Amino acid sequence: MSEVADHLLEMARAARRVLPILAAASDQQKADALMGCSQALDNTRRAILDANAADLAAAQQTGLSEAMLDRLALDEVRLDGVIAAVEHVARLPDPVGQVIDETRPPNGLVLQRVRIPIGLIGIIFESRPNVTADAAALALRSGNAVILRGGSEAIRSNRTIHAAMVAGLTKAGLPADAVQFVDSTDRAAVGAMLGAAGLIDLIIPRGGKSLTSRVMAEARVPVLAHLDGLCHTYIDKAADPVKAEAIAVNAKMRRTGVCGSMETLLIDQGYGTPDALIGALIDAGCEVRGDEAVCGLDDRAVPAHAEDWTTEFLAPIVSAAIVDGLDAAMAHIARYGSHHTDVIVTEDDAAANRFVAGVDSAIVMVNASSQFADGGEFGLGAEIGISTGRLHARGPVALEGLTTYKWVVRGQGTIRA
Amino acid sequence: MSEVADHLLEMARAARRVLPILAAASDQQKADALMGCSQALDNTRRAILDANAADLAAAQQTGLSEAMLDRLALDEVRLDGVIAAVEHVARLPDPVGQVIDETRPPNGLVLQRVRIPIGLIGIIFESRPNVTADAAALALRSGNAVILRGGSEAIRSNRTIHAAMVAGLTKAGLPADAVQFVDSTDRAAVGAMLGAAGLIDLIIPRGGKSLTSRVMAEARVPVLAHLDGLCHTYIDKAADPVKAEAIAVNAKMRRTGVCGSMETLLIDQGYGTPDALIGALIDAGCEVRGDEAVCGLDDRAVPAHAEDWTTEFLAPIVSAAIVDGLDAAMAHIARYGSHHTDVIVTEDDAAANRFVAGVDSAIVMVNASSQFADGGEFGLGAEIGISTGRLHARGPVALEGLTTYKWVVRGQGTIRA
Repeated sequence: MSEVADHLLEMARAARRVLPILAAASDQQKADALMGCSQALDNTRRAILDANAADLAAAQQTGLSEAMLDRLALDEVRLDGVIAAVEHVARLPDPVGQVIDETRPPNGLVLQRVRIPIGLIGIIFESRPNVTADAAALALRSGNAVILRGGSEAIRSNRTIHAAMVAGLTKAGLPADAVQFVDSTDRAAVGAMLGAAGLIDLIIPRGGKSLTSRVMAEARVPVLAHLDGLCHTYIDKAADPVKAEAIAVNAKMRRTGVCGSMETLLIDQGYGTPDALIGALIDAGCEVRGDEAVCGLDDRAVPAHAEDWTTEFLAPIVSAAIVDGLDAAMAHIARYGSHHTDVIVTEDDAAANRFVAGVDSAIVMVNASSQFADGGEFGLGAEIGISTGRLHARGPVALEGLTTYKWVVRGQGTIRA
Repeated sequence: MSEVADHLLEMARAARRVLPILAAASDQQKADALMGCSQALDNTRRAILDANAADLAAAQQTGLSEAMLDRLALDEVRLDGVIAAVEHVARLPDPVGQVIDETRPPNGLVLQRVRIPIGLIGIIFESRPNVTADAAALALRSGNAVILRGGSEAIRSNRTIHAAMVAGLTKAGLPADAVQFVDSTDRAAVGAMLGAAGLIDLIIPRGGKSLTSRVMAEARVPVLAHLDGLCHTYIDKAADPVKAEAIAVNAKMRRTGVCGSMETLLIDQGYGTPDALIGALIDAGCEVRGDEAVCGLDDRAVPAHAEDWTTEFLAPIVSAAIVDGLDAAMAHIARYGSHHTDVIVTEDDAAANRFVAGVDSAIVMVNASSQFADGGEFGLGAEIGISTGRLHARGPVALEGLTTYKWVVRGQGTIRA
């Protein structure tokens, strides 16, 4: 095993040793620690921005794309946001210790399921240095230890932000080993994290599709993530046209680069004004790639190719098709969807209920824009990611999703017959 | 890829095609189907017992151990139990469709988390043919499809039981593909199941440690299982001696072969009557392998070796040590335990609470016998297994543990600002 991988496992063991301290930390202690982290970030603004400037200068030399440079860049305003986000997480309610349910079976025992931290979480991310603070804050708020492995292009920024987080943590009496930073650009560290089953409890990738797919393909540790956000909006024949147009335009065009943006529009052949719907999207600046029927509705639509039904455009482009009713829409979603977020627009409750029951996605929406697929909008207060996996936490994941539970059983000398 | 592996993947695809039908099946339809299964099992008693006799005859020729033969054997009474178990599962409440919670964030959306089946579950088991009926019933009751791969020694019994389950299922209008049986003794089928990430959603091994450890080591699909049940009982200095002795003897001796049986007894050095405790275990027929202090309490105790602290005896043998208080007990459990079930016996609430908070096991008990670690005793109505994993379901797992959830979001044409 390489030295880097060896070192990674040593970090993981160090983090595991402090898990009992984190699990036992009080709500107040964790909140205080995160307020200390935000204070430490504020105190080291100069160092963080200098480190970021050095990262940016190096990245420009290696020819990083403009988009990547923008994700990497910090300024005073963005740093304000990073600091505010940590304070926001500090103020969220602590899920640890919550009693999920209590039962009293006839054998005389009292059983509770009590929320506890998952344990040690590995975060693998790229470019955006705010993840160092953001993901660490969510993990710590829920009593977890964390190993952070960011992109090589942001290593100076990440190192400085990490140091501030550790300073805040230790000032509150929590162990420095709770937040580990992989201070190496060697990709062997990622391989070691993905293989550390039994040492790392959960891996969360934060970044583009190539990162996520590598993590999903190679990990021996459970992964919380989504690979694609291939979100569909189905306009039922019983849709209100005003709602349909507002939702379609918002779902696609509000922000085209987010995972909850609509990528495919399905229109029931019985819907009355499909031309106005397609026209509204094109008028809003969207390229519509349609099947034959859609192209017949508006001269400005272009013919869709096979790959357009499986492409997450993340751009002002949408694929669009006329379908033969609800069942055909659900069949299309089952075939091409990514189990992220799918929407029906309809005034027909029966159709809505059939769609809700029949579409197998983490999030199913009725008469709402798929752009709401977000932990903040879901009232979770924050978000560490959106999961399309089937186990543990699904959809937007925040603090509760970073916990699991133990059974606490109390008897009075109770023995089993 | 081998023909067997190829065929396995084809079975999985066939099962996935019927997932929407199972997910949409009503409580009544699933209950009716399982009552039909139990009826079909009752109608084919002769064929099942004949098949089992043929399995037994073949197994005797290959020199299977007495214990394995006993696990394999069915008779009228055991078959009654199999049939009754399926009827019992039919009568359990259906978790699918339950609303876990409902929230109304300020954006005007109404959000619900609704329980849904996990999807396709692979069960890999050995010897006991009742698992064919039992595991299939639990999976179906919770709306899941299942692929069953039993041991080669039970293939005739399993085939016949599976045929009865399919008969009951199809009579109730549910698809035969929902319960698939791997009618092959080729171990390549197991490899194919373990590698079928994306096709099979969850693997549950049911059998001995060598099966479970192979499954855990090789699976690319999430696994719900426990490898060891290395359960500890800690007798605090504030323990009531009457409760302590009753619990220790029951935890070890009620049934020594179950995963919840005590394997290590830890006694606080401040506890008043350790000699009586050790004597009670030995009087009950238990071999006590003790550290030096324990051996000094009773001439009949024998010295423990290092491996005795990490051995799941599953026999009337216990390792025992005197420890220096609660922290030493928790440190011992953290070092040697298997995160299954650990017990404190104490009248001191503060000690109990510290133990409950500090011991990182799926089940933590106060003043009760670890033999209660069982889905039936926990009021779950049944059990498909006990999980020591950290994600999704922990401890005893029954119907709720075989579900996950989707977010159902309702708006009124709601778009995101």
